[in-house]
Amino acid sequence: MKKHWDLFLAPYEQAIDELKVKLKGMRSQFEMQSTHSPIEFVTGRVKPIASILDKANKKGIPLDKLAAELQDIAGLRMMCQFVDDIKKVVELLRQRNDFEIVEERDYITHKKLSGYRSYHIVIRYPVQTINGEKKILVEIQIRTLAMNFWATIEHSLNYKYSGHFPEDIERRLQRAAEAAFRLDEEMSQIRGEIQEAQVIFSRKTEDAN
Amino acid sequence: MKKHWDLFLAPYEQAIDELKVKLKGMRSQFEMQSTHSPIEFVTGRVKPIASILDKANKKGIPLDKLAAELQDIAGLRMMCQFVDDIKKVVELLRQRNDFEIVEERDYITHKKLSGYRSYHIVIRYPVQTINGEKKILVEIQIRTLAMNFWATIEHSLNYKYSGHFPEDIERRLQRAAEAAFRLDEEMSQIRGEIQEAQVIFSRKTEDAN
Amino acid sequence: MKKHWDLFLAPYEQAIDELKVKLKGMRSQFEMQSTHSPIEFVTGRVKPIASILDKANKKGIPLDKLAAELQDIAGLRMMCQFVDDIKKVVELLRQRNDFEIVEERDYITHKKLSGYRSYHIVIRYPVQTINGEKKILVEIQIRTLAMNFWATIEHSLNYKYSGHFPEDIERRLQRAAEAAFRLDEEMSQIRGEIQEAQVIFSRKTEDAN
Amino acid sequence: MKKHWDLFLAPYEQAIDELKVKLKGMRSQFEMQSTHSPIEFVTGRVKPIASILDKANKKGIPLDKLAAELQDIAGLRMMCQFVDDIKKVVELLRQRNDFEIVEERDYITHKKLSGYRSYHIVIRYPVQTINGEKKILVEIQIRTLAMNFWATIEHSLNYKYSGHFPEDIERRLQRAAEAAFRLDEEMSQIRGEIQEAQVIFSRKTEDAN
Repeated sequence: MKKHWDLFLAPYEQAIDELKVKLKGMRSQFEMQSTHSPIEFVTGRVKPIASILDKANKKGIPLDKLAAELQDIAGLRMMCQFVDDIKKVVELLRQRNDFEIVEERDYITHKKLSGYRSYHIVIRYPVQTINGEKKILVEIQIRTLAMNFWATIEHSLNYKYSGHFPEDIERRLQRAAEAAFRLDEEMSQIRGEIQEAQVIFSRKTEDAN
Repeated sequence: MKKHWDLFLAPYEQAIDELKVKLKGMRSQFEMQSTHSPIEFVTGRVKPIASILDKANKKGIPLDKLAAELQDIAGLRMMCQFVDDIKKVVELLRQRNDFEIVEERDYITHKKLSGYRSYHIVIRYPVQTINGEKKILVEIQIRTLAMNFWATIEHSLNYKYSGHFPEDIERRLQRAAEAAFRLDEEMSQIRGEIQEAQVIFSRKTEDAN
Repeated sequence: MKKHWDLFLAPYEQAIDELKVKLKGMRSQFEMQSTHSPIEFVTGRVKPIASILDKANKKGIPLDKLAAELQDIAGLRMMCQFVDDIKKVVELLRQRNDFEIVEERDYITHKKLSGYRSYHIVIRYPVQTINGEKKILVEIQIRTLAMNFWATIEHSLNYKYSGHFPEDIERRLQRAAEAAFRLDEEMSQIRGEIQEAQVIFSRKTEDAN
Repeated sequence: MKKHWDLFLAPYEQAIDELKVKLKGMRSQFEMQSTHSPIEFVTGRVKPIASILDKANKKGIPLDKLAAELQDIAGLRMMCQFVDDIKKVVELLRQRNDFEIVEERDYITHKKLSGYRSYHIVIRYPVQTINGEKKILVEIQIRTLAMNFWATIEHSLNYKYSGHFPEDIERRLQRAAEAAFRLDEEMSQIRGEIQEAQVIFSRKTEDAN
């Protein structure tokens, strides 16, 4: 049984290893070109077996349909400093030729009721195994550090209360989501100022020449 | 010249590599024991040569005193989810036998004028090299994700304006610092509730037995 | 100048990082399936700038033709336990869809005059960069541990004598090559015996059932 | 049960991770100083649970004495190019202050009946855990690439025949051991010549000045 799961999950592990190297590489390329990197850091994981079973059960997915219907068995997260960086990362992913985009879900423009914000891209990624090519689904979540911060905490509370929050906790989580949102807003405004300052600065030095 | 710097920085690179494995290992141990980890993630870097020269220049440190007087040539950061986690991490570092603590600076209780908050620990770490043992200084910064978020952005703005912010940017940075602070506060309150909930929960189950 | 080289070499570094994860992954898959892995270990490197210039000079390749005409700027090595494993690894590489094979050179069947034995495959590998896709050449060398052992030492002697060995050293190198060859032969014969033993063993257990 | 083993093995995993970074670092330091590195590469592993139980059983070690009496639960291997490098590596390990040497076993001077050659050092290594310091035993095996090559194959055959080789296989293994030994000999002689050549070369250039 253990063996069976190991074999099923092997291409997912492989995909995560490869995609971490690929997406982290994008960050290094920005650094090398001395440009602001829209990618702050990248993490990845294969969903633990217990969580796969849980989710399959909740969504009524039979075990032989897992690969086709569970989109986040392999998951990656790309964290950004600024809200505006998210759409740049999405653009960068769209222009790659090493996978195919299956679906995009924009929880930034339309945040979830819970307060959750993130941009999700589901890709079909070809893994070359010793038994031939396997195409698997991988979910990439793109979010700011503040969004990630909140989501991480919401996730652990959710786990504790199995999704049914007591009212006061729900209210406090909402307030935390707003605080995270405000932090992103403040940061965005500073970003604008930096860019304006840069324009003024470059004009000034041009005049001087 | 390049060669000289490489040889000077080699033990610092080695120390960072070793300490990253050591401090990340602490996080894994918490996970294995199924306890909340006060450590969310760990990063480390050796200061780029240009920044070393800059700082030495600003502080009037002669080049032959760099190793003794510049405390952050090797630097590590430990990020926490909750403000309360910071002092637990400090405790964990104090009880280790593989380095000696030289200095602690508490910018959590006493935040800097700029709004900067973090707990700094400077250690003396023995590196075993092929030419014998070398003891070097390493700075460990411990902070929440929100503190880190703000500090990262303040750092890049600081770099741009060489420390002399225009008044409006200064004001906006301050507002961002407050937003980060509020986010930490909201999170702390939720944390309290989780723990209260856990106490109530465990009492209830005890009564039931 | 340094900057220029960094930008030129960046996709090669990225390709090596990706291919190391990919080819090492093949080994893990054999282990997971509890089959003998024809791959013992994998190493990779980008050629140092000095060596690139040296080789370009020796071969009369102009600097703007480096990417097209120097095939081993990015190089990987796959080490095998047994000579017979080499062709299995070649087969595995041929069936992958994530690169295109440009050339194969079989120095196993036809060893070089120096005594050098290895199987070389040159591939065209597409790297996804933030500026779009770049296809680069990568050389993969496949050899047994004994072949690798000898090649490593020949390489450093070659470097020392710039390819013009004193006669006695030449003779000794040849003898070392023969010793390496004999080691591979002995190992191959043991391998045969293992496989024969396995056939006998499996027949016996079948009879017993 | 699984949990229990995970907790027992955790400090061993941690020790291997730390020591790999430490011992690989020695190799980098030689490279940086442009000196011949006596260390070619380093590998490490924690013994699989099944093998621990097997060995404990064979040696009559009760489960509660594993940590004290099984010396190779954590194991590292350091591979050298030349036989002479082995004693240099031993010297380097003896001069380190981050662990204590418990025992040395010299199977180079006194090879085992099977043909096995290697230098073994057992160390007591202090791991800093979140529950305080734990001192554990770690075995470091130092050998040439040819010795390692042979040992790897002998190990898998041994596993297959549970230590009782058929006579002809025993004889062939012996011949392979001799081939490996001869390869090391040939290499050592070339090494001597390189060093002699270097002395002649440096004398010549001194005369010329």
